[in-house]
Amino acid sequence: MQDQSKKMWSGRFNEPVTELVKRYTASVDFDKRMAEVDIQGSLAHAAMLNKVGVLSIEDLKSIQGGMADILNEIREGSFEWSLDLEDVHMNIERRLTQMIGDAGKRLHTGRSRNDQVATDIRLYLRGAIDLLVGLVHELQISLIDLAEKNASTVMPGFTHLQVAQPVTFGHHMMAYVEMLGRDAERLADARKRVNRLPLGSAALAGTTYPIDREYTAQLLGFDEVCQNSLDAVSDRDFAIEFTAAAALVMTHLSRLSEELILWMSPRYGFIDIADRFCTGSSIMPQKKNPDVPELVRGKTGRVNGSLISLLTLMKGQPLAYNKDNQEDKEPLFDTVDTLTDTLRIYADMMRGITVKPEAMVRAVKQGFSTATDLADYLVKRGIPFRDAHEAVALAVHYAEQKHKDLGDLQLVELQSFSPLIGEDIFEVLTLEGSLNARNHVGGTAPFQVLVQIAKWREKLGC
Amino acid sequence: MQDQSKKMWSGRFNEPVTELVKRYTASVDFDKRMAEVDIQGSLAHAAMLNKVGVLSIEDLKSIQGGMADILNEIREGSFEWSLDLEDVHMNIERRLTQMIGDAGKRLHTGRSRNDQVATDIRLYLRGAIDLLVGLVHELQISLIDLAEKNASTVMPGFTHLQVAQPVTFGHHMMAYVEMLGRDAERLADARKRVNRLPLGSAALAGTTYPIDREYTAQLLGFDEVCQNSLDAVSDRDFAIEFTAAAALVMTHLSRLSEELILWMSPRYGFIDIADRFCTGSSIMPQKKNPDVPELVRGKTGRVNGSLISLLTLMKGQPLAYNKDNQEDKEPLFDTVDTLTDTLRIYADMMRGITVKPEAMVRAVKQGFSTATDLADYLVKRGIPFRDAHEAVALAVHYAEQKHKDLGDLQLVELQSFSPLIGEDIFEVLTLEGSLNARNHVGGTAPFQVLVQIAKWREKLGC
Amino acid sequence: MQDQSKKMWSGRFNEPVTELVKRYTASVDFDKRMAEVDIQGSLAHAAMLNKVGVLSIEDLKSIQGGMADILNEIREGSFEWSLDLEDVHMNIERRLTQMIGDAGKRLHTGRSRNDQVATDIRLYLRGAIDLLVGLVHELQISLIDLAEKNASTVMPGFTHLQVAQPVTFGHHMMAYVEMLGRDAERLADARKRVNRLPLGSAALAGTTYPIDREYTAQLLGFDEVCQNSLDAVSDRDFAIEFTAAAALVMTHLSRLSEELILWMSPRYGFIDIADRFCTGSSIMPQKKNPDVPELVRGKTGRVNGSLISLLTLMKGQPLAYNKDNQEDKEPLFDTVDTLTDTLRIYADMMRGITVKPEAMVRAVKQGFSTATDLADYLVKRGIPFRDAHEAVALAVHYAEQKHKDLGDLQLVELQSFSPLIGEDIFEVLTLEGSLNARNHVGGTAPFQVLVQIAKWREKLGC
Amino acid sequence: MQDQSKKMWSGRFNEPVTELVKRYTASVDFDKRMAEVDIQGSLAHAAMLNKVGVLSIEDLKSIQGGMADILNEIREGSFEWSLDLEDVHMNIERRLTQMIGDAGKRLHTGRSRNDQVATDIRLYLRGAIDLLVGLVHELQISLIDLAEKNASTVMPGFTHLQVAQPVTFGHHMMAYVEMLGRDAERLADARKRVNRLPLGSAALAGTTYPIDREYTAQLLGFDEVCQNSLDAVSDRDFAIEFTAAAALVMTHLSRLSEELILWMSPRYGFIDIADRFCTGSSIMPQKKNPDVPELVRGKTGRVNGSLISLLTLMKGQPLAYNKDNQEDKEPLFDTVDTLTDTLRIYADMMRGITVKPEAMVRAVKQGFSTATDLADYLVKRGIPFRDAHEAVALAVHYAEQKHKDLGDLQLVELQSFSPLIGEDIFEVLTLEGSLNARNHVGGTAPFQVLVQIAKWREKLGC
Repeated sequence: MQDQSKKMWSGRFNEPVTELVKRYTASVDFDKRMAEVDIQGSLAHAAMLNKVGVLSIEDLKSIQGGMADILNEIREGSFEWSLDLEDVHMNIERRLTQMIGDAGKRLHTGRSRNDQVATDIRLYLRGAIDLLVGLVHELQISLIDLAEKNASTVMPGFTHLQVAQPVTFGHHMMAYVEMLGRDAERLADARKRVNRLPLGSAALAGTTYPIDREYTAQLLGFDEVCQNSLDAVSDRDFAIEFTAAAALVMTHLSRLSEELILWMSPRYGFIDIADRFCTGSSIMPQKKNPDVPELVRGKTGRVNGSLISLLTLMKGQPLAYNKDNQEDKEPLFDTVDTLTDTLRIYADMMRGITVKPEAMVRAVKQGFSTATDLADYLVKRGIPFRDAHEAVALAVHYAEQKHKDLGDLQLVELQSFSPLIGEDIFEVLTLEGSLNARNHVGGTAPFQVLVQIAKWREKLGC
Repeated sequence: MQDQSKKMWSGRFNEPVTELVKRYTASVDFDKRMAEVDIQGSLAHAAMLNKVGVLSIEDLKSIQGGMADILNEIREGSFEWSLDLEDVHMNIERRLTQMIGDAGKRLHTGRSRNDQVATDIRLYLRGAIDLLVGLVHELQISLIDLAEKNASTVMPGFTHLQVAQPVTFGHHMMAYVEMLGRDAERLADARKRVNRLPLGSAALAGTTYPIDREYTAQLLGFDEVCQNSLDAVSDRDFAIEFTAAAALVMTHLSRLSEELILWMSPRYGFIDIADRFCTGSSIMPQKKNPDVPELVRGKTGRVNGSLISLLTLMKGQPLAYNKDNQEDKEPLFDTVDTLTDTLRIYADMMRGITVKPEAMVRAVKQGFSTATDLADYLVKRGIPFRDAHEAVALAVHYAEQKHKDLGDLQLVELQSFSPLIGEDIFEVLTLEGSLNARNHVGGTAPFQVLVQIAKWREKLGC
Repeated sequence: MQDQSKKMWSGRFNEPVTELVKRYTASVDFDKRMAEVDIQGSLAHAAMLNKVGVLSIEDLKSIQGGMADILNEIREGSFEWSLDLEDVHMNIERRLTQMIGDAGKRLHTGRSRNDQVATDIRLYLRGAIDLLVGLVHELQISLIDLAEKNASTVMPGFTHLQVAQPVTFGHHMMAYVEMLGRDAERLADARKRVNRLPLGSAALAGTTYPIDREYTAQLLGFDEVCQNSLDAVSDRDFAIEFTAAAALVMTHLSRLSEELILWMSPRYGFIDIADRFCTGSSIMPQKKNPDVPELVRGKTGRVNGSLISLLTLMKGQPLAYNKDNQEDKEPLFDTVDTLTDTLRIYADMMRGITVKPEAMVRAVKQGFSTATDLADYLVKRGIPFRDAHEAVALAVHYAEQKHKDLGDLQLVELQSFSPLIGEDIFEVLTLEGSLNARNHVGGTAPFQVLVQIAKWREKLGC
Repeated sequence: MQDQSKKMWSGRFNEPVTELVKRYTASVDFDKRMAEVDIQGSLAHAAMLNKVGVLSIEDLKSIQGGMADILNEIREGSFEWSLDLEDVHMNIERRLTQMIGDAGKRLHTGRSRNDQVATDIRLYLRGAIDLLVGLVHELQISLIDLAEKNASTVMPGFTHLQVAQPVTFGHHMMAYVEMLGRDAERLADARKRVNRLPLGSAALAGTTYPIDREYTAQLLGFDEVCQNSLDAVSDRDFAIEFTAAAALVMTHLSRLSEELILWMSPRYGFIDIADRFCTGSSIMPQKKNPDVPELVRGKTGRVNGSLISLLTLMKGQPLAYNKDNQEDKEPLFDTVDTLTDTLRIYADMMRGITVKPEAMVRAVKQGFSTATDLADYLVKRGIPFRDAHEAVALAVHYAEQKHKDLGDLQLVELQSFSPLIGEDIFEVLTLEGSLNARNHVGGTAPFQVLVQIAKWREKLGC
């Protein structure tokens, strides 16, 4: 124990830190989740030191053996984390030295905690991104399945939450597949900048040992080596870029959540969410609440907040490493956890959606949703678009006062707004006619929706 | 155990929630810190129900006994928290019913979790504010003590980090006492709006029981009763207002931290921070790093982030309660914790500051800090300020090229910029002369600094 | 013109700034809106200088005359603003000197732009707050009028956007009156900290003239004098506190906007917004879009953004004044403008709301909204609340499968869930019965709504 | 004029909007900067309509002629913008119709303002990104030039603002070249997602005309066509992603600004900034303030704020287009302007930096900056790193009390901490020895700095 309370850097200090300071400055409570990547990084570092002749083969083997044991202890839960040892790095190194003696003390040769922690976070985040991209794809597949079943299910397309034009539910779901597609692209782009090796930058200026950073990078699967040591130890761009990408994922899901909540509201009644994603009320026995989408909508704030935390953190920091940077981990970890849980639960929830087509049809008939089709009809007969638009506006005004939809007016009534209208107008004013007419790339025609589904299935291999 | 897995609202549900949903929607992991105030609120609610004749005296006594036992269990750590029971409220109520039977089931009469949780948060936050105001005062006292010892310690006053005019270190410290004074005001103002009782709003519309909300408010020490039930269950203004006030506290401490870090940098060397607030380096044995102020500076981002989380959370939420609101707690709790620790550690750290007056004097002599005094001298001899300013600018330009301070120039040299300059100028150009001349309310003259210290000592009773 | 391009501080500089630097660093484009308060502040400063014997009565009169002329020029639009003169202060001072000569050059005696601009912003913001509090009250009155007309208009009260219990539309409107009431309180609290005088702090340390700051404060209507010069010139708390209060105003209006948009969506159809607040579509002739509430909801982001801008700005700034602070004005001004327009347009828009009671009744009948009343009925007959809740849950499940509301079940069917149910239950299960039963402070009973309206009318004197 | 006040969608409206509503909802004041891209988009749309047979060749020519005239009017400043016509699109279309009659009314066939504005913003932002990437490169070149001149200029490398190890000023500058390199990468990645065509999505569902979106995309230089119409009109990801990338640019420049301010502070005195980027004081004639870096540091808040504005804006918006989206433009435009000016001014400012090597050397000698070299020396003689670290810590403690640097101790004194120390230690403890020893990829050795410079020169072709 006496050993543990002695700090790694204690030689020139006259007094120990207080308990509060110890707790305030320690990070082991939250950074221990990086234990496995810390060991992974140390093993690569040791192998490189051996390759360049700084570490003997005996010491290397000893370190490898000790680390294997430590990894076991951690996985089994028997590893004793100590607040006195500040962080995950010191906890592991001290344990190693307890186990294997001097070889353990040689591990830190040619590196510093500054480049060590930067390496650990990048390894951790790279793994998290790979997991998250997979979860994004799973959610996309869940949405594509739902879209396929509803490629022709007509629903009101809204702008300004007013009925605008008929669309299909499948088309609507595919809009979110597009958004998530961009999210996956952004995560992949961020990964490129995560996957560069800071190790070898030491405290800030590089090291006097003849290290081979390309070799370490290769062992750890990094694409590149960070090219400037001052930048490498102080760069947290990757955490910010990742969190910004994560904020967009949550923003997309906040939009879908808003819609699910709305659609499950009894006046809409477009869908039902499976009971296992809902909870009841402690006082109102009839309630079934869409808790999961509401929480997702709320958790958007959480990720936006983390983004601001990180940006505020880095603002105006002089080079190179400052202790401020320790505050990068909690917002990053929280963002990874929030996204992981949210994507996973959402993929499952979308599989539990029941669609209610009658309610959708009832709604789409309530807003003159085919008025644009009437205008287009007139344009095709030679009327300039702006004049057609005005004629239809008057027709809608008339129909509204009659409490009828446009398609329910008499031909003679319609003709009072334009003599060019003929019998064929009634086909145009059906929901199916309207949908099928929008038959171009990106349009809502069921055929186009199926084209998109096929394209995505190929892209995702599902 | 079977009992535990049965939800409070399960009657009309066909399937249980999955493990992930359970974890995702449960709050007990973080809201259990409200256990004591939850019990406090329940006891007041029960007493009120009894007063108005809805709960028998036997049931009340039974509830009081049971709650006393539960409180003991919680304090001892023997209380078994269950994720299946979602939150702190259900955990406690279920345990109560296990202990005392039907009386426990009567406790929830005339209330809902919506008003219960709103009451709990307010009780919790009221306590936190009272604690924090005390800690703000402690830090102020710590700063005042330091200011008093340094009421005449001359240091460079900076604008744009350029030497501007001499000030005293005491005056500088008292600037932070002012900032913290406003922080305490803001917390007190926020407390007024925290200290209003939502209980009795039930789910959203009030209740059919003849409740006496004023009585409950009185028992719990609330100043007022929330006047609209829909607002009462959905209002989270107080959390946002508190967090905004907290962000200002941290902003102030980020500024002081920036200065401490700067002043401890060897080129400045104005102060030393006691070893117990610093740490060393894992690689550079000579380092003594001001970790605590750096972390404080970094944690500013954390509170700014929480503020954004809460504002994002509430944006566009329809009335009344939505599950999104569950996301209010973690940013709030984290903000309270961050402030509590930071204020406490800062009060202690300021007591461990060593001031190095020689370094300060060396610095103040390096920037023509008495140039304004020369301009004022000329104005007092009848030159319009703008012309005096221009004359002194030329004198500074001249002195700079001679590598001399203004006070080191010859009288004849000075007179070349204005014939009105006499022998008495050299007194004006001393640091002490400059300081003492700023002798009005708010000025840096040592006398004024002592006046301010006396005023604050009276206000804080210290 | 040559005069204009000569900077106020040019004496020791070797080269002029470039055009881009001039534009980048100048603030006159946006700070000229402070012209009137700048003149007001200068006049008080001059009067004080005269009072303490630093400025002759002739000079004072001369300044007063010149300023009167300048004010006229500004109001008439004939004042020539020059980018070369950087800011509003220099533009006015230079013009004054052009007009009145040396007296103009004496105006800046004993002050600096640092305390001058701080004074101007506070004067400006004080005026803005007074205007805004008035606009908040106007909107409250508009809501109260609407509430009074609808004190008994039944509508569904929602939680989780599911029908929960009947409330009245008047009660719902009064929830926003409460929110705005807190907003007005917060603005008033912020005003206290705005209304303190920084003038006399000069650049950062006070001044060598025997100024009388209390007198200046009195002339300008400030409640207090800032007590520390370093703090006074660098403090921007008031801008942040105001913007945080403004963010809450917008958050409240974002919630009301969300509801208006929802209620105007055809599936809800609870209200109609007057045409003058809506726009149509360039392509869909039938559309009537609630543009104003949508824009308000969007503009919430604008104010949240400004709050973050200001907090980021101040983070880690060393004392005293730094040029960073110039960035305080645009977010502040934009926030004032956004609030002013939004409150004004909202008060008018609420007067143009048409309520559609039949649609509301149709909706409230769609969600077993009186289930809680049935539970309370059982409790009053002696069943513990939790057991009553469970019995009603089963009844709801049953009624749902029968596609009936609870009040439409047969007595015998109801009794199958509890033998304690009697004929009198049908009165309890009506909407009116449910509303009237919630007859306590804050409850939704029409009587209570009228009590609240009366209370607010008295408070606002309307 | 009567013509102008008639809205495009007025047919079914009973009353006109008020002046305040008009101003509140109009965007022409800020969106007119998109006039040229709006015309560009319209011309491509018209050409496509002609290609697919929907628009006659006469109409197309007529539109092309009219647009050429309008473009001239806009460039000359003679175009009359009208608030009554709401936005840039309507202003231009109305003018076109005035000029060419019915052909103008046919232009809007098959599109909507929803897809039109989305196309305009993307065209605008694509151009802005291309400009900004060029400006990033210019700043990089400016830094590289400065780095090259100072590849061997020794300065203290700081961590925690404490002297850590010697680095070169060139190495330090190259750290920012790396950061800006990532910024350019991020902008390029964002551009991929900007450069997709929404046109053809019409209001939300596509159009009934046989449009050829690939052809339009080709004419406008878009890489791809947006694949889902609902997504295309409501997607603002690209604005958020760009603003997040911009926030990182500003964060980097805030760090460099912090350092420039610090280095120009007299206690550091490492550099001087050319007078043309500095301003003086209205009261202190001796001041020369680094205004530009201070403003840049402050403007970081502005971009962070815009990012939050945009994220808040999109949170929880249901599909498809809502008026909220109009609020996307001002934060986006402000961000583009802020970045453009800041990058341009910074490139120029860095060319005006004077480096003061003596001050840097003086500073690096003040912090035992070669202590790590001593530790490494011992390790190379067989002592485990942790033991070497501890020995050196004691040596530093000793030297500090003697007020000497490590290299100034006697050999015998040094040997008291380790008998392994020999005469060759004094070479190791020189600044040059320390620098040159860090000779690996990313290290601070002058040779490595030159390698990096060469690499960047090749990459940037400069």
